[in-house]
Amino acid sequence: MRDVAVIGVGVTKFGELWDKSLRGLIVEAGLEAMHDSGVTSKDVDALYGGNMSSGLFVSQEHTAALIGDFAGLASRHIPATRVEDACASGGVALRQGYISVASGIHDVVIVGGVEKMTDVSESLATDALASAGDREWESFLGVTFPGLYAMMARRHMHEYKTTKEQLGAVAVKNHRNGALNPKAQYQKEITLEQVLNAPMVAEPLGLYDCSPISDGAAALILCPLERARKFTDNPVKIIASAQASDTLSLHSRRDICTMDATVAAARNVYRQANKKPKDIDLVEVHDCFTITEIVAIEDLGFVKKGEGGKASEEGLTALNAEISVNPSGGLKSKGHPVGATGVAQAVEVITQLRGEAGKRQVKNARVGMTHNIGGSGATAVIHIFEAI
Amino acid sequence: MRDVAVIGVGVTKFGELWDKSLRGLIVEAGLEAMHDSGVTSKDVDALYGGNMSSGLFVSQEHTAALIGDFAGLASRHIPATRVEDACASGGVALRQGYISVASGIHDVVIVGGVEKMTDVSESLATDALASAGDREWESFLGVTFPGLYAMMARRHMHEYKTTKEQLGAVAVKNHRNGALNPKAQYQKEITLEQVLNAPMVAEPLGLYDCSPISDGAAALILCPLERARKFTDNPVKIIASAQASDTLSLHSRRDICTMDATVAAARNVYRQANKKPKDIDLVEVHDCFTITEIVAIEDLGFVKKGEGGKASEEGLTALNAEISVNPSGGLKSKGHPVGATGVAQAVEVITQLRGEAGKRQVKNARVGMTHNIGGSGATAVIHIFEAI
Repeated sequence: MRDVAVIGVGVTKFGELWDKSLRGLIVEAGLEAMHDSGVTSKDVDALYGGNMSSGLFVSQEHTAALIGDFAGLASRHIPATRVEDACASGGVALRQGYISVASGIHDVVIVGGVEKMTDVSESLATDALASAGDREWESFLGVTFPGLYAMMARRHMHEYKTTKEQLGAVAVKNHRNGALNPKAQYQKEITLEQVLNAPMVAEPLGLYDCSPISDGAAALILCPLERARKFTDNPVKIIASAQASDTLSLHSRRDICTMDATVAAARNVYRQANKKPKDIDLVEVHDCFTITEIVAIEDLGFVKKGEGGKASEEGLTALNAEISVNPSGGLKSKGHPVGATGVAQAVEVITQLRGEAGKRQVKNARVGMTHNIGGSGATAVIHIFEAI
Repeated sequence: MRDVAVIGVGVTKFGELWDKSLRGLIVEAGLEAMHDSGVTSKDVDALYGGNMSSGLFVSQEHTAALIGDFAGLASRHIPATRVEDACASGGVALRQGYISVASGIHDVVIVGGVEKMTDVSESLATDALASAGDREWESFLGVTFPGLYAMMARRHMHEYKTTKEQLGAVAVKNHRNGALNPKAQYQKEITLEQVLNAPMVAEPLGLYDCSPISDGAAALILCPLERARKFTDNPVKIIASAQASDTLSLHSRRDICTMDATVAAARNVYRQANKKPKDIDLVEVHDCFTITEIVAIEDLGFVKKGEGGKASEEGLTALNAEISVNPSGGLKSKGHPVGATGVAQAVEVITQLRGEAGKRQVKNARVGMTHNIGGSGATAVIHIFEAI
């Protein structure tokens, strides 16, 4: 197994981008990443594309080959593989790309993530997202996707005295970071009062506890570490990659306040990287809802189980505090084009480790983590990156 | 890179299985493969699932985690990754599983392929299949999926004097083989007259030139070759694996009588395996339409370009003739649950190389190939297997 580096990154603005198509978005991100890396189309050996549901959102499957086609790679006939693990599709695409380079099968690989969600109505989008959970045992019986997370939040409040104010603190912090990110969907701060008084989506989660429906794309260029400096002066090394699964349905879980898939993948990456939570300078966690960030920072070992709400309220997860959580603004503020998210998280971490994050730069960032989950936690995929 | 063996296979009956669900089908195939291999759930390190469009067919994404869940693997939290490359999803899932074992990342991997297509109307199914082509440039402008292949057929007839009778010979041969396969959707022979007099689907392709809409699943168990005999007495070695891509839209292709993705992947597998077409004892090719088999046997080098129709008519591709093409009955007669097809092709080749194919056994089968394509040829994935 070879060491693998990320040598280029690209990401579109996230938002309601009604003038851009799925193929247009991913090509924009991909060309930005190629330009950033110095790689040209003749260097590229393979493409992995993360996408959750282009079928339901834009009536298009075969997305990876489509990306290759519109990125001008079709004439080279490289393998183009779409990976889908719901909202973890991007992170899992990165992992497949990583495996293919680490194994020696490919040298230069493009990893793309994309979702075009705003071409359908909000109710259709919500329904498409419910396909990430167990359709037959959950949404067919009436629970929406926010409803699943609402149950986790309610149980967390019961078990650990987590409050709506603590949930709200996550949203306020992520909007504060997102206001500093020119690619974010919402570049504006919000107040705790706004969060608490927002319309209810699924009690106890209000509008500001939920990430938005978004269009967007992100891309990475990977190559063997030993070849990285041929292309770029600032490669970032992938020092750990792990993925884990769990039951789709919440009712089959041991404990709905813990995502066992996150716990299993985290154990694996810490061992691979020989790092502890305190060694991580910044982490992009999967905050599809505010409760999700609280559960994530507990399951990743940054705080003890049950203390995620308190830590958020006390500011321990703010930019340049104890651990910088979601410096990009996270899914909440940056936006959540589901198939793009895992790749965009990596773009943020690499940007931070290169010291190129501008106003939202985490000081002395050397080691960063991405945590991307699918559905209500049936997939978790975690990577650790290190500046070299 | 380690050598990789297939140590277990499973496949459901293909057909209109209205009493079986997507999850039920894949679990049936997966458990059959595990039982066949002697592997138990505690041995399994990862799962790759090939599925084209569970979103459009049964409103369910996150299919690989679902498979792991219902196969009883969730408590082990193994990575479960869905792969989608349209009708090549199964073959590409096999390739990702192969890469993960060859690289040393995983030891025992389940590869599953599944599609549940008959829960929607025929027009919705046809529309879902059109998502394998370029939606914006093809089906939105009125061409159906059979229409794309009809254009290839018409051009092949123009360039090479291929006849409707030659197309029909492919269907007759595949039904003859399928009649010997207890898992086939159509276990009955048909006559050339029936093919020629069938209702027209997309001129010149009639009903019997088209593979059916099917439900079904298939599964394989992979492990490093050096560990294979711990589990089974009859492992089969994967001696080559390659994948290639092309433009989604037909109108962007150099030549619609040749699939350049097949040609590129074939060149790669023959080199990896150090084999020539004449060394292949049997091949399962992707005959979604009769023209597709004719183009495939040309592009794979079994006959010269333009001579596929003549070879089919002369019986060179029949069971135990020059080269046994689609001894299973192929997509045409065995059925074509799209995400399952690439895996089911491998199940057939392994069954043949083990000498367990009963009445359709290819004599002295030592080396077999699978050829699985996505859409109208934007993805091609080819594997070569050898008995050991």
